[in-house]
Amino acid sequence: MVHIPDRSTVPPPAPRSVPTSADVARLAGVSRATVSYVLNNTSAVRISEPTRRRVRAAAKELGYVPHAAARSLRAGHSRMVLMPAPEVPAGPLYSQFINELQWALGRLDYTVVQYGQVGLRGDEAARAWAELRPVAVLLPGGGLGPEGVAVLKRSGARAVVTMGVERIEGAHALLMNHAEVGRSAAVHLYGRGRRRIGVVMPEEPGLEAFSNPRLEGVRRALEGTDATVTVLPLAYEEESAAELAARWGELNLDSVFAYNDEYAMLLMRALQDNGVAIPGDTAIVGADDLMLGRLLRPRLTTVHLELPSGRALAELVDQAVQNDTAPPEVRQVLGAHVIPRDSS
Amino acid sequence: MVHIPDRSTVPPPAPRSVPTSADVARLAGVSRATVSYVLNNTSAVRISEPTRRRVRAAAKELGYVPHAAARSLRAGHSRMVLMPAPEVPAGPLYSQFINELQWALGRLDYTVVQYGQVGLRGDEAARAWAELRPVAVLLPGGGLGPEGVAVLKRSGARAVVTMGVERIEGAHALLMNHAEVGRSAAVHLYGRGRRRIGVVMPEEPGLEAFSNPRLEGVRRALEGTDATVTVLPLAYEEESAAELAARWGELNLDSVFAYNDEYAMLLMRALQDNGVAIPGDTAIVGADDLMLGRLLRPRLTTVHLELPSGRALAELVDQAVQNDTAPPEVRQVLGAHVIPRDSS
Repeated sequence: MVHIPDRSTVPPPAPRSVPTSADVARLAGVSRATVSYVLNNTSAVRISEPTRRRVRAAAKELGYVPHAAARSLRAGHSRMVLMPAPEVPAGPLYSQFINELQWALGRLDYTVVQYGQVGLRGDEAARAWAELRPVAVLLPGGGLGPEGVAVLKRSGARAVVTMGVERIEGAHALLMNHAEVGRSAAVHLYGRGRRRIGVVMPEEPGLEAFSNPRLEGVRRALEGTDATVTVLPLAYEEESAAELAARWGELNLDSVFAYNDEYAMLLMRALQDNGVAIPGDTAIVGADDLMLGRLLRPRLTTVHLELPSGRALAELVDQAVQNDTAPPEVRQVLGAHVIPRDSS
Repeated sequence: MVHIPDRSTVPPPAPRSVPTSADVARLAGVSRATVSYVLNNTSAVRISEPTRRRVRAAAKELGYVPHAAARSLRAGHSRMVLMPAPEVPAGPLYSQFINELQWALGRLDYTVVQYGQVGLRGDEAARAWAELRPVAVLLPGGGLGPEGVAVLKRSGARAVVTMGVERIEGAHALLMNHAEVGRSAAVHLYGRGRRRIGVVMPEEPGLEAFSNPRLEGVRRALEGTDATVTVLPLAYEEESAAELAARWGELNLDSVFAYNDEYAMLLMRALQDNGVAIPGDTAIVGADDLMLGRLLRPRLTTVHLELPSGRALAELVDQAVQNDTAPPEVRQVLGAHVIPRDSS
């Protein structure tokens, strides 16, 4: 008699199991230690070439991949540099900077991981990052407290480096002096005889960390002079720019520092469409020195930001990792200078 | 007699050690299993509230953070979705798309990690990604072979999803039909009476995956008509655009599909500076529907790309993770339509 199994009682297929180093050891007929020595290219232990070949063949056959975390536990630390992903879409300047930094850290044998977990903030975020056991954490902007830095360090991070406007206890700080961006723009406009100066403040959230110190820089530069500063909220939308342009006459301004080149392009277009002559009636200065500023007519005067090169920053991170007992360092890394063109 | 140690023989300070769950267990006076149950909020095991409090206090005191990899081994899989970081600086359209996707996956309790390791390619890259044990891998563009997909799956990835122009065996594919972008532009220009059509091909590396199918789409749309197609290599630099504009007369074109809005802005500026009337002498069409196209004069006609929403894509990834025994699916996810403005 033939037994025909009821399909409903057939057991489900076994779950796919992830091959381990024990599986590789079994297939190659060696110890797990030998597998580890061979696959991590440890030179401290003498293992014959045929054995090495057998281990590699077994690993390949099983599709074995070492576990990064297990490997970093053995090595004492990983080569992962973690950066939180920006919460606002990154502009072209920042994207290029991150790209350069990745290349430079890659040449130093680090791997950059951009960690995007939405809604995590401060020390809670630090705990999530710590779970990946990075050897260094690079923080554009602030948002972390000393407790977060301590959590990261206790989890094996040898360096926490912030790039922002303020220091955090226990972390290296690359201070970005965005006030200098505003200051340069204000000094330039004042020097060209402008006295009634507007400052665009983007309404998009997440940009206050840059726009506030830029405004502060304009204010400080003009303190004690005969110039006035008018704050101009502006959303990155044509409607918002059209509204602002429509009441330009009442505002009675002779110049504007437009936060960056993109807002400058938006506002300049709206002003020109309303018959405002640039720079005759109103001078405009952007910031970031993007290509598009050179393509506008008149060509846009801009503040060029002197960011540290990706290579310099990568070396700084590497030094901080290697000298992890040295006290946190503070460096000023953002310079700024005006590139005068035809809009001011 | 007092023994004064020779400084050179004083042992170096003990390396900072990362606290483990064993340390927490010792301090709280409980077993390691109990620590794990409490910190992972396991409800299957009954543990008194005072014990839970003791474990949490000990973990806090020691600064203990669970190891993501160890946790994912226990849970059977992680909640990490890995994406390789783009090798070329991401444009504004792509940055916004990634941002949306991160939010949407975050709401489904995934964490997106962008992995940037320079110079790693194909299956070697897959091995590096596999070390982080992601539950899903999302690949913009191709570059991975079936072996790479297999490595990822054997390492516990439940879904590998590519977004690109071709399928990879074993992976879900979201096919981006960039030929459709070129086709729409060509049909639009032909419909407006243009017959001598130029197509800008960016000289920057990394864009061929988009520019080649776009050109192909233009060619196919005009096959068998009286229109001609001229390929126009262009670097994203003013000099390159000026050179192209200087020989515009010889080229004898009445229109150009400029790859995207940024190249369109660059070329339009150079042509206008050379006295070429837009659209009178030459019609221009961009792509991506960026804000800057609306700010140009004449306003730029563009091809709007219908990308899947971050939310739709996140749900697709989640489904693929949950039904990981289902065969790979193929979907067309890129639509395109022309937004006619004043430049064509």
